[in-house]
Amino acid sequence: MQDDVLPSGATIGILGGGQLGRMLALAAARLGMRTHVFEPSDAPCAGQVCDRVTRAKYDDVQALQRFARSVDVITYEFENVDLNAVDGVADLVPVRPGRRALEISQDRLLEKNFLNGLSIPTAAYWNVESAADLGDALEHLAGPGIVKTRRFGYDGKGQVRVAGAGDTDTAWTALAAAPSVLEGFVTFEREISVIAARGLDGSVVAYDPGENVHEDGILRTTTVPARIKPSESQDAVLTAGRILNALDYVGVIGVEFFVTGNGLVVNEFAPRVHNSGHWTQAACLIDQFEMHVRAICGWPLGDGSRHSDAVMTNLLGDEIFAAPAETGTAVHVYGKAEALPGRKMGHLIRTTPRQ
Amino acid sequence: MQDDVLPSGATIGILGGGQLGRMLALAAARLGMRTHVFEPSDAPCAGQVCDRVTRAKYDDVQALQRFARSVDVITYEFENVDLNAVDGVADLVPVRPGRRALEISQDRLLEKNFLNGLSIPTAAYWNVESAADLGDALEHLAGPGIVKTRRFGYDGKGQVRVAGAGDTDTAWTALAAAPSVLEGFVTFEREISVIAARGLDGSVVAYDPGENVHEDGILRTTTVPARIKPSESQDAVLTAGRILNALDYVGVIGVEFFVTGNGLVVNEFAPRVHNSGHWTQAACLIDQFEMHVRAICGWPLGDGSRHSDAVMTNLLGDEIFAAPAETGTAVHVYGKAEALPGRKMGHLIRTTPRQ
Repeated sequence: MQDDVLPSGATIGILGGGQLGRMLALAAARLGMRTHVFEPSDAPCAGQVCDRVTRAKYDDVQALQRFARSVDVITYEFENVDLNAVDGVADLVPVRPGRRALEISQDRLLEKNFLNGLSIPTAAYWNVESAADLGDALEHLAGPGIVKTRRFGYDGKGQVRVAGAGDTDTAWTALAAAPSVLEGFVTFEREISVIAARGLDGSVVAYDPGENVHEDGILRTTTVPARIKPSESQDAVLTAGRILNALDYVGVIGVEFFVTGNGLVVNEFAPRVHNSGHWTQAACLIDQFEMHVRAICGWPLGDGSRHSDAVMTNLLGDEIFAAPAETGTAVHVYGKAEALPGRKMGHLIRTTPRQ
Repeated sequence: MQDDVLPSGATIGILGGGQLGRMLALAAARLGMRTHVFEPSDAPCAGQVCDRVTRAKYDDVQALQRFARSVDVITYEFENVDLNAVDGVADLVPVRPGRRALEISQDRLLEKNFLNGLSIPTAAYWNVESAADLGDALEHLAGPGIVKTRRFGYDGKGQVRVAGAGDTDTAWTALAAAPSVLEGFVTFEREISVIAARGLDGSVVAYDPGENVHEDGILRTTTVPARIKPSESQDAVLTAGRILNALDYVGVIGVEFFVTGNGLVVNEFAPRVHNSGHWTQAACLIDQFEMHVRAICGWPLGDGSRHSDAVMTNLLGDEIFAAPAETGTAVHVYGKAEALPGRKMGHLIRTTPRQ
């Protein structure tokens, strides 16, 4: 083994203690790795399955540094980690996927600039720092669009649809005057995503693209294979690879695309394991969680080929209580205490032989 | 859900904290279950992934009763649990697979009697309580055989091969005069095993039989499919089902067979998840560990059909250190501190598309 390969028994630090952290911890345990979760909130669901939990705020530099000294590598389950927090530990222990991926993916303007710098198509977009900016941008756009805050949006939050310049003031108020981006509305046939990984040695693997259906801004189902042309599938995988290489990335990434009559358009990417990759747990030898653990520990990437077709369905709120009755289906339950409406509580994966 | 269905969030008590308990705890976590491991030894590897560990001896009735009061169901990862311990908790909480399966499987004489009572073929056998018994039995056998202690044998321990009556005294001394069984030597083409499960509602599922290769009494590989006739495969599965029903069993069982020119002969069964069922982790939608958890929690059994062919290889002692280099292969590492020679440290599963 090389020096930068972490052996079984090493400890992975995970920033964030939600279901993604939980499933990372379970995958790490399969490989004999220990996990230490850092999470501000009480009783994180990842805490049930990891070795150790530090409960502290993300801007508690001292707690973060103690945490960093107790682990061999740090990763994160969500992209809104404070960059100052990362900078405070990066000289103590490797942080993977890495600072640049975080910085870019947590700011929609940087993300769009980065993608366009790679000549990867995105929606038309304008930087919006004031109501006046938004009014000007909407006149340029001359059609419907979506204003999104640059930072801290997820599951459809921090977004307002606009029909034209007449909506300027309403939209700006709804977004609380936060720095934003106006995006032109993309007419698409369907939404797909690619889950891909890059190893410490620069090797890249990608799972087959999945087709996503959202409801109320929240992912409802991912179906694999997606109903797309082979050329579109290849384009999606190659685009994910270009993003990974450009970021000198280590770990799993989720890249969301719109499939349009003029080809693929990237919606956004997430520098972490991704809800639309949960299907890999039941349909691939090495799932996205283990793939991420392998990558950040310097192990060879695993076999991501699909042995089965799959439909993943998120279980939201009290849908979780019906889960045990589903036969012929894999169920994952996140162990969250309260089944609040719309809250991701678990997921189902129905598999069928690969067609 | 019925009253006897344990919901996600319930706690499973596991007697024994080795790798089988560890993988049961990880499977339970996928379903949102909590786990509490009871184990006499220090730092059990299952303790790294469960919610809680009680360190106490199996005959510590008070500790066992405290343990029982903290869980919703008790199961075990090995069959040599003291029956008195089980009796001390059985009125507090359900113990599954159940007392009778334990009692029979931990005593080779009771096991053989039970199987023969079901007209299931076994090796010829004689009860041996003294050197004189052994001498008489060897004269009846009139050929080579194996003397095995009735209790506490595993991985080839507590067994002595004998060529004939002349070996009586040597064998009896080697077994420390423990109550034993003489078994006639079975000439077999290969060894197979069936992993099967029975639910609380009496439904039964079985995985496809695997072909086992042992070295020095320790399982080395399991290959699926086994090289057997369809009629032998069916016979093996039906036999496992008869054993499950006769024991009013709840959970996963492992049944080992010799394949002979005259059909199948049962070697033994284990009332628990089984090393020869680890291949299901990579080749089936629901693996043996989750199947066991589903059964003992009263959930519907899962889909045990095989989507891939598989070869499982145990990693013994320092073989574990080569594990990360294997690509195209799933690896499981048990997190044990010391890689002692012959110790089961992890396993590999190589899969190929189902033929």
